[in-house]
Amino acid sequence: MARWEPGTRDRLREAALELFASRGFEETTAAEIAAAAGVTERTFFRNFSDKREVLFASQDEYAARFLGGIAAAPAGASPLELMSAGLDAGSGFFTDELRPHSRKRQAVIDAHPALQERELLKGRRLASALGQALRERGIPEPAATLTAETGATVFHVAFQQWIAPGETRSIAEIARGLLGELGALHTS
Amino acid sequence: MARWEPGTRDRLREAALELFASRGFEETTAAEIAAAAGVTERTFFRNFSDKREVLFASQDEYAARFLGGIAAAPAGASPLELMSAGLDAGSGFFTDELRPHSRKRQAVIDAHPALQERELLKGRRLASALGQALRERGIPEPAATLTAETGATVFHVAFQQWIAPGETRSIAEIARGLLGELGALHTS
Repeated sequence: MARWEPGTRDRLREAALELFASRGFEETTAAEIAAAAGVTERTFFRNFSDKREVLFASQDEYAARFLGGIAAAPAGASPLELMSAGLDAGSGFFTDELRPHSRKRQAVIDAHPALQERELLKGRRLASALGQALRERGIPEPAATLTAETGATVFHVAFQQWIAPGETRSIAEIARGLLGELGALHTS
Repeated sequence: MARWEPGTRDRLREAALELFASRGFEETTAAEIAAAAGVTERTFFRNFSDKREVLFASQDEYAARFLGGIAAAPAGASPLELMSAGLDAGSGFFTDELRPHSRKRQAVIDAHPALQERELLKGRRLASALGQALRERGIPEPAATLTAETGATVFHVAFQQWIAPGETRSIAEIARGLLGELGALHTS
């Protein structure tokens, strides 16, 4: 088997999601996921550190885009402008084609406490990476942490709405609406 | 031994903290905590569901005060006013006498991933209880969730500051400053 094969990670993700959804997370082994994706168990572990990580590795890709957006924002951007630039850049990850997969993935996570724990940890890691990125752009404390936490909240709420039945707007569009609501809360 | 004895929970808390700090969390058993507090293991488990919970049961008391503050706020209060009323009421829990204990407790939590997980879950539970309390006060979505998440963030950041070396302000005072900072972020 080739050491690198395009689409292997995506196939492993889809296979894992199908098995977790149909049999349950605990009942599914990494070997079974590998077999369903047509690769060896060794290839599975070359791609993911454990079977929880199959569902969460994509969050690192999303976080990298979010952080890239902050780094690329124009000089002199305010904390919220930096955070919005990150949200916009990150939202590009969540294409319309991904939405059905994301819905199924969330249903699996919501059904398994062990997966919810990993999701919480990833969420915390995103918030602290955002805080770091903002400090690197010269934002002082406590503004950096407050903005980072606000960004993590807006993303989390926007994502939940994005996968809601019938929702068709992009995450960026939903997030902009939420930021507007937040601003209104502080000025009313 | 009396079924109910004043101060038993506090003694168990202090004993647990001392043992976790000196020996480590994994190395300490519920029986050892009970012995150090001068009670039986059975009394320990009548007070706390497990040895992690010794450190976290007080968060439920804090959350109850926070929610009570929201419920007692005047009619017509805005979402942020309701949340501030909760923060003010909750802050009464964190007396100056508690500060050294809280510092030691946080150092123990920060040193043990298993305790950090429980802390994250408690934090999530507080945020969702706040959202529920705000909806019960008639706040619609997404304002209720956004305000609840903001409240959880402000509390978290205020608490970290409250236990910082040399800090003497109350949590309520620190939280008011942070809310002002947040408002300024949205209006600048």
